[in-house]
Amino acid sequence: MKVARRAGVPPFEVMSILDRVAQLRAAGRDVISLCAGEPSGGAPPGVAARAAALHQANDLGYTSALGPRPLRDAIAGHYRRWYGLDLTGDDVAITTGSSGAFVLAFLAAFDPGDRVALASPGYPAYRNILTALGCEVVDIPCGPEDRFQPTPALLDHAAAQGPLAGLVVASPANPTGTMLTRTELTALTTWCDVHDVRLISDEIYHGITYAAAGAPDARGVSAWERSRTGVVVSSFSKYWGMTGWRIGWALVPPDLRPGVDALAGNVALCPPAPAAYAAIEAFSPDSYAAADARVAEFARTRATLLEAVDSLGWGPIAPADGAFYLYADLADALGHHRDATSWSRALLEEAGVAVVPGIDFDPAGGGRYVRLSFAAGHDAVVTAIERIRAFQSR
Amino acid sequence: MKVARRAGVPPFEVMSILDRVAQLRAAGRDVISLCAGEPSGGAPPGVAARAAALHQANDLGYTSALGPRPLRDAIAGHYRRWYGLDLTGDDVAITTGSSGAFVLAFLAAFDPGDRVALASPGYPAYRNILTALGCEVVDIPCGPEDRFQPTPALLDHAAAQGPLAGLVVASPANPTGTMLTRTELTALTTWCDVHDVRLISDEIYHGITYAAAGAPDARGVSAWERSRTGVVVSSFSKYWGMTGWRIGWALVPPDLRPGVDALAGNVALCPPAPAAYAAIEAFSPDSYAAADARVAEFARTRATLLEAVDSLGWGPIAPADGAFYLYADLADALGHHRDATSWSRALLEEAGVAVVPGIDFDPAGGGRYVRLSFAAGHDAVVTAIERIRAFQSR
Repeated sequence: MKVARRAGVPPFEVMSILDRVAQLRAAGRDVISLCAGEPSGGAPPGVAARAAALHQANDLGYTSALGPRPLRDAIAGHYRRWYGLDLTGDDVAITTGSSGAFVLAFLAAFDPGDRVALASPGYPAYRNILTALGCEVVDIPCGPEDRFQPTPALLDHAAAQGPLAGLVVASPANPTGTMLTRTELTALTTWCDVHDVRLISDEIYHGITYAAAGAPDARGVSAWERSRTGVVVSSFSKYWGMTGWRIGWALVPPDLRPGVDALAGNVALCPPAPAAYAAIEAFSPDSYAAADARVAEFARTRATLLEAVDSLGWGPIAPADGAFYLYADLADALGHHRDATSWSRALLEEAGVAVVPGIDFDPAGGGRYVRLSFAAGHDAVVTAIERIRAFQSR
Repeated sequence: MKVARRAGVPPFEVMSILDRVAQLRAAGRDVISLCAGEPSGGAPPGVAARAAALHQANDLGYTSALGPRPLRDAIAGHYRRWYGLDLTGDDVAITTGSSGAFVLAFLAAFDPGDRVALASPGYPAYRNILTALGCEVVDIPCGPEDRFQPTPALLDHAAAQGPLAGLVVASPANPTGTMLTRTELTALTTWCDVHDVRLISDEIYHGITYAAAGAPDARGVSAWERSRTGVVVSSFSKYWGMTGWRIGWALVPPDLRPGVDALAGNVALCPPAPAAYAAIEAFSPDSYAAADARVAEFARTRATLLEAVDSLGWGPIAPADGAFYLYADLADALGHHRDATSWSRALLEEAGVAVVPGIDFDPAGGGRYVRLSFAAGHDAVVTAIERIRAFQSR
C-alpha cells in the first residue's frame, strides 16, 4: 500500500539517541546524556503544585482552541515585563509546545512550494516540518565567521536564486547557542519587511542567557520589538524547565490570526489543559526566581565546560551566548573515526556519554561537529568530560 | 504579507460556539451546553491521582517520540482484553490526542493531491486537516437510509471519478453516533484492501455504546480485527473522559511506522508526558469500572433524550448506537429560521442552550440538522429539552 513521499523526512536523531540511552540504562549501564535539550530539576515549584491541584480537582475539559484567556493575558504581561512591549492576550496563541506553534505558523503562512530560508546548522524540526508540509527549504550556510547566524548579505544571495516566502531564525540558536544582537536582529526584520518575507523568530531559549545581569537585552531581543509582521515562537520548556508538558505559544500577527485560529481548532483542538492552566503560575515572582536560579547554575556549568574543552584538542569554539549547548568542531580529535556520527556512536557505546552528531543540525556541513547539551547539570558535565578525555586517549 | 491559501480552512465551529458559551456565562447567563463532545466527571480517579502524584514529583521530561513504552504495552493489552487481538507495544504510537494521530496518519499515508474519501456528515477536522495538508477530500454523501455510513457501493461510485488513496470511517460516528456492524466494517476493509486504499478507522468512541452488555461486539468492532493495513485512531478523551489532557493513540501498520516515527519526533517531539504516564492507570479494573459507570449514565440520558425529542416535532431520528450524540433533522421545527445555523444561534442567545448546527459536519447537506451532545448529563439534557420546547412554541 502507498506510503507518502513526505513521510520520508529523516527522524529527529536526538529522539533516536534518547531511545538508545534508555535501552542502555535499562540494561544497567551508567550513561550520561548530554543529548537532549532538557533542563533537569522540573518546573518551578508553584507551577508543579498548581498542576497537581488541578489533577486532584479532576475537571479538565477542552480549553479554547488558542488556549485559556488568562494564560494568554499572562503571557502578554510577560512581554511587558521583559521587553517593555504592549501586547494583549489577543496577540498570543497557546500551542502544544513550540512544535505545535511551528506547525500552525508554517501552515498559516506558507503554501506548498513556498521557499523558506533557514540557517544551517539549525534545529532539524524546522526543516523537517517544512518539508512534510510541502515547502521548499532554502539552506543559508552559516559558519563560525557569522557566529552561525544569517545576515542580510546571505539572504540577498538566497533570494537571488528565487523569491523567499519566509525566514526562520533562532536566537539563542540551537545547536550553537549564539545570539543575534539588537542591531543584527533589526537588520533581519528590516530585510524581511522590505522583501515581503515572513519572519518566524524562535525565541524559546530567551531568559537562558549569559550576559551580565542588567546588561542591555540580557534576556534576548524579541523580533516583535522591531516589527509585528512576523511570528514569534516560544515555550515553557526551556527557561521554566517544562519540556514534557508540551506547552508553548506564538505571537501571531493580525493577518495570520484567522488562519491560526481555524487551523488550531482542527489540527490540535486545544493545547493540553492542565499544562495551560498551571503555566499561569510561571509568571509569579517565585517562578521567575526559580528559573533564574537554574540559569545561574547553567552559567556555572557553561564556564566549567568551556574551560574543559580547551584541553580536548577540538577546533575553535563559538561560546554560547545563551541556551545550554556547545557546538564543537571535533577536528583532529576525530581520530580514526570517519565522522562525528561514528565518533558519537562509539562514545555512547564505549564510554557511556551521549552527544548529538552535527549532521542532525546541518546535513551538508555538520559532519565533524557534535552538540553537547549542558542542561544535564554541572556534575554530569564534569564526569562526561573526564570520560570523553579517556575515550579520546584510548 | 502573504497568508497561506491553506490557512483558509473553516474554523471548527464547535470551538467558536464554546467560546460564545464562555462569554455568555462570564456575563452571568445560565447556559446549558449540549455542544462539546465532552463527558463531565473527569478522568477515572486512579488516573487523576496518578497525574497529581507525577506533578508533585515534578520530574517530567520528554518521552520517546512515540510515547512511553509501558503505555504502548498497556494499550496492546487493552486490544487483547476487548477485541481478542494479539498486539505488542510496537503496533502502538502514543499521540497528542486523536488530533495528533490524524495529523501523523494523514502525513504518513497521503501526499498532496491524493484523494481521500470520507462520509458526510462527519467530524469536520478530518476534512479540514486533509485540506490543510493538501489532500483532496472526496465527500461520500451518506443519509439516514445508510445510517450515515459509507458502503462499498458508495465507494465504487466515488472511485469511478478518480482513484482514491484513502478512506476515513468512524464507528461510532460523530455527529450521528451510528455504528458499523462487523459485516459492514468487513465489507469496507475488504473493499479498501482490494482497491489498495488506506483505511483510517476512527474508533475514539469505542466503549461508549448502547448494545446490551455481553452482546457480540458490544464495545465496537476494530478495523484491525479484519486487516492490519489501515490505521486505527483512538484516544483517552471519550470513554475515559480525559478530553483536556490531549492524549490518544494510533495502531500503525508496519509500512507506515518509519514515517510515523520520524514525523512524530519532528512535528510533536513527544506526547504530553504527565498524561502519557498517568494514562497507564486507565487500564486498571477500577478505571474500566468508573468509565463503564459513566457509560451507564449516558445510556439513561440517551433514553430520556430519545423519548423527549419525539414530542419536539423534528424529523425521524437515527438513534445513536454509540457516542453521546443525536443528529437531528429539525424539519418543520425550523419555523421562521432560514436554517439550523440561524435556529441554533437564536436558541443559544434567547434560550441559553448551545447545540451545533449540522453545517459543521456536512457543508452540503447539513443545513436543517443539529447535533445534540448528551455528554453534559441527564439533568442538563432534561432542562435543555424544556428550554427547546419553550423556544419552539414562542
